[in-house]
Amino acid sequence: MTVKLVVLYTLPDDPDAFDEHYLGTHVPLVSAIPGLQRAETGPLVTALDGGERTYHRIAELYFADQDALGAAFGSPEGQATAADYQKIAPPGSRMFIAHVDD
Amino acid sequence: MTVKLVVLYTLPDDPDAFDEHYLGTHVPLVSAIPGLQRAETGPLVTALDGGERTYHRIAELYFADQDALGAAFGSPEGQATAADYQKIAPPGSRMFIAHVDD
Repeated sequence: MTVKLVVLYTLPDDPDAFDEHYLGTHVPLVSAIPGLQRAETGPLVTALDGGERTYHRIAELYFADQDALGAAFGSPEGQATAADYQKIAPPGSRMFIAHVDD
Repeated sequence: MTVKLVVLYTLPDDPDAFDEHYLGTHVPLVSAIPGLQRAETGPLVTALDGGERTYHRIAELYFADQDALGAAFGSPEGQATAADYQKIAPPGSRMFIAHVDD
């Protein structure tokens, strides 16, 4: 059962500086995580429900299963990514594990 | 530029009934939407940030670009999907358009 880490970044004070760090520093850290099958990210541009655009960016990291995800974030590369996340994630950012239906 | 509709369903009163309707009725409606390139859905099982598991399910619908997404939801199949969404989405559910970075 493929699982994914779903990260929802809230609106940064300086979106351009955030994206520069995210794409230039964070993405390379993510890419080095062992067991990562695929990563997808992009900016949230519109709230279609008429509510607030609560989140600035979504990121999804795919792993073969929950054990692979756990091992990934136990690795030095995973720890470095988590440390960088703590540095950049605006308050209220969310992080979930989701199963991926076939 | 690929775009995706990101839907975050909040926790339903009856998760089993929700999933039954979602998988049995809503997914077939989604699958019929013209221009849909890919759809991915799955339950959110854990809030890794220590916060509430605010959302029960994530769904992502991929389109070639913003125009294709607009045309899709202007179609009868898109309208039928939107009507079913209104029927099943628990209060506070969110819907965003995201760009997908290369």
